[in-house]
Formats: sequence, C-alpha cells, structure tokens
Amino acid sequence: MSQTPEERIQELGHSLPTPPQAVGSYIPVTQFGNIIVTSGQLPFIGSELMFKGKIGDHLHEDDGSNAATICLMNALAQIKTISGDLSNIKQIVRLEGYVHSAPGFDRQPYVLNAASQLLTDIFGEKGQHTRVALGISEMPLNAAVQIALWVELSS
Amino acid sequence: MSQTPEERIQELGHSLPTPPQAVGSYIPVTQFGNIIVTSGQLPFIGSELMFKGKIGDHLHEDDGSNAATICLMNALAQIKTISGDLSNIKQIVRLEGYVHSAPGFDRQPYVLNAASQLLTDIFGEKGQHTRVALGISEMPLNAAVQIALWVELSS
Amino acid sequence: MSQTPEERIQELGHSLPTPPQAVGSYIPVTQFGNIIVTSGQLPFIGSELMFKGKIGDHLHEDDGSNAATICLMNALAQIKTISGDLSNIKQIVRLEGYVHSAPGFDRQPYVLNAASQLLTDIFGEKGQHTRVALGISEMPLNAAVQIALWVELSS
Repeated sequence: MSQTPEERIQELGHSLPTPPQAVGSYIPVTQFGNIIVTSGQLPFIGSELMFKGKIGDHLHEDDGSNAATICLMNALAQIKTISGDLSNIKQIVRLEGYVHSAPGFDRQPYVLNAASQLLTDIFGEKGQHTRVALGISEMPLNAAVQIALWVELSS
Repeated sequence: MSQTPEERIQELGHSLPTPPQAVGSYIPVTQFGNIIVTSGQLPFIGSELMFKGKIGDHLHEDDGSNAATICLMNALAQIKTISGDLSNIKQIVRLEGYVHSAPGFDRQPYVLNAASQLLTDIFGEKGQHTRVALGISEMPLNAAVQIALWVELSS
Repeated sequence: MSQTPEERIQELGHSLPTPPQAVGSYIPVTQFGNIIVTSGQLPFIGSELMFKGKIGDHLHEDDGSNAATICLMNALAQIKTISGDLSNIKQIVRLEGYVHSAPGFDRQPYVLNAASQLLTDIFGEKGQHTRVALGISEMPLNAAVQIALWVELSS
C-alpha cells in the first residue's frame, strides 16, 4: 500500500477525532518499550457518549458495530499522540473488545468485526491482530462498547 | 524434566489439535518482541464448539474444567505455530480465563485450575503463570469458557 | 518527590501487606523483560476476603472504593516481591479493574478512582497509568473487586 494509514482512514470515510479525555484518575494511553497501549475507549464523539445501553436489547447489533468503530477511531487517535505518524506502527498486536450485552446475546464477534475489519482496511497486513471478545453485563457510563488497543512500534 | 513439553502432553493423555481458525476478522495468535499472545480461545474441537452455556446452570463446573482444558490445548497449538517446539518457551506469563457463569456461580478459580494445573504438568516450573479469572454473563457463540495465553520465548 | 514510594504509602495512612497467596494453581506475580504483571488481586486482608457481593446492590460504591484500595495494596505488595524497592518502578503501565456490579450500576470509574488516585499519590507522575474498567456479573469467591497491575521497571 502506497498510502499512509491517515490517508486510508480518510479514503474509507472516517477521520481521526480529537482524542477523548479519560473518564477518571488515569491517562488514556501510554508507551513501554516499543508497545503503546490505550485505556479502554468508549464511543465518545467529543463529550457525547453516542451509544448507551445493551446490544441485543434496545440497541441493535449494528448499533454495536457503529459504537465499536467510534471506539476504534478514538483508540487510534490516542495512539497517534504518542506514535506520531501511524506509519510508525509495526503491527496492531491486540484488540480487547467489551460488548455491553443483553441476556442471550452472543454475537460479540459480529459487533467487533466492524473494528477488526477496519484495522485491516487501514493498515493492511500490519493491521491483523489478536482479539479477546467478551459480553459484559454492566459497563462504565452505560456505554455500549469499550475497546482497548495494543500496538507495536517500529524500532 | 528430560521430556519435551510435547512428550509430556502425550503422556498426560492429551494431544495438540489443529489450531482453530479465528471466529472473526482477526488472527488467532501473534508475536511482539519475545512475547506470543493468543486471541481468546473457545472450546472448539475441529469446527464443533464442545461446551455451550453457563457454568452453574445447565453446565456443571466439571464441564467447565473440561472446556478450559480444550481452550488451553487450542491456545498451545496456536502458540506452536509461531514458537516451533514448545521447549522454546521460557515461561508461561499469563492466563486470562473467562468463565460463562450463571448468577451466583463464584467458583471460576476451580474451573480454571484444570488449565492452570495442566500448564505446570506440561512445562514444570516454566508453566507457573499469573492469572485473571472472571465470570462473564454473555460469551461469544454462547461458549462456556474462553482462554487467552501469553508466553515468553527464550531469546 | 524526595520520599520513596514506601514512605509515601505510610504517610498516606496505608501499609504494604504480606502479599496474599494465589487462590488456585497459579502464581500471584511474574516478570518478563522489564515488565512485572500481577494476577488478579482480590480484597483480602490476610486470609479474610473483606468485601463480598455486588456494588450497587447491598454494597455501596464507597465499599467498592475501599475494596479497590485493598486490592491495589495487595498488588503493590506482590510487585515488591520481585522489584525490591518500589523506587525501581519506572512507571505504572496499566490497571485492570473489575467491579462486581449489580444490574444498572455504571459507576465503575468512580469505584476504581480510589486505586488510580492512590497510585498517583504514591508514585507521582510515574503513577499515571492506563486503565480498563469493567462491570462483572460474577466474581471469583464473590469478591467485590478484582485488580491486576502492570508496571515497568527501570532498566
């Protein structure tokens, strides 16, 4: 791919937001060695939490996918504050996806695929990542999805 | 221990399966630096999910132990695709154990001990690992257990 | 800050406990490279689990904060068994906070802020960390809170 990740984000119809502030006494992102890890990102756009409630209840799984996409863009924005250009990323290592789930809802993989696929669309082979997907009964601020991202920088 | 981990797995009556495919747009295992981390492994044998539902409800905690054992063997099979011989593992670093739990069930440590003990049986002192154990209300594909494993390779 | 972390812990009215034993077939803490990671720590004082049950139900969120503080002190005690002096810590990398939550309780960030703020009070800028906060439906031993901590050592 000759485009930068930032160019592909734009081409895919997305944009990197201003990274949201932490919702408590912590920081949103840090680096150790060549690894950058984010705090759990919620589906904030600015100061507004866009999707609240449980998927499979009053939220549809496509709402969950939209929420996951917002979380992911927030995570990438956080990472960029440390990495500089996203082309400094060697690989996306791990996506932790927590889906606020109504009883009986077991399609967390579908919800998170929106974010996982987007990573591959943006970063190509470097975007292929491991994933843990969990259905969560109660979520901070009643958010629909929470995503944390681990990436490795080129040394 | 003079046997290899692979020999001990066989002696203990287990076998390394063909590593299962990811159930979404992600990869099952990756390496960064000397660390290999798996995606969350479900109790698949081949394409069949062997244990579905919640422990403490229609599944007994021993079903949970059996499910945890299958998840662990899948995780080791994933790791072997990168590490080559399992004797290249310096230590098992961390086991994340997610137990699909009925209301009131709090014996997640018992369920996961099957996997934790097996790691020590296979790897000896190198198999001693840290662990996070959680009871999860809703699980991808209604699986009974999900396990992710972190290992460190000898450099 | 001219005081050591150990001195600040004392000045803040806390003390490092004897690190609790694991509640299963695992070890409470390990090191890989410059990273120390703990197992999930429960609110044990000695062999007594101090807070059981769900926050937002018969436990108040301030009980949760107290439980989180105990978990954190246990985590620091575990880390000290490997790091020696806590001043060998370069930075607190990540706090994983799992809050046993009654239906509808979404103030996990508030519960965990007790632990997060304490890390900054003890370690200053080095104590600023990333965080994942989840509401958990069922917890090992019915514990109110579980915390795992990742720290980086000075090389």
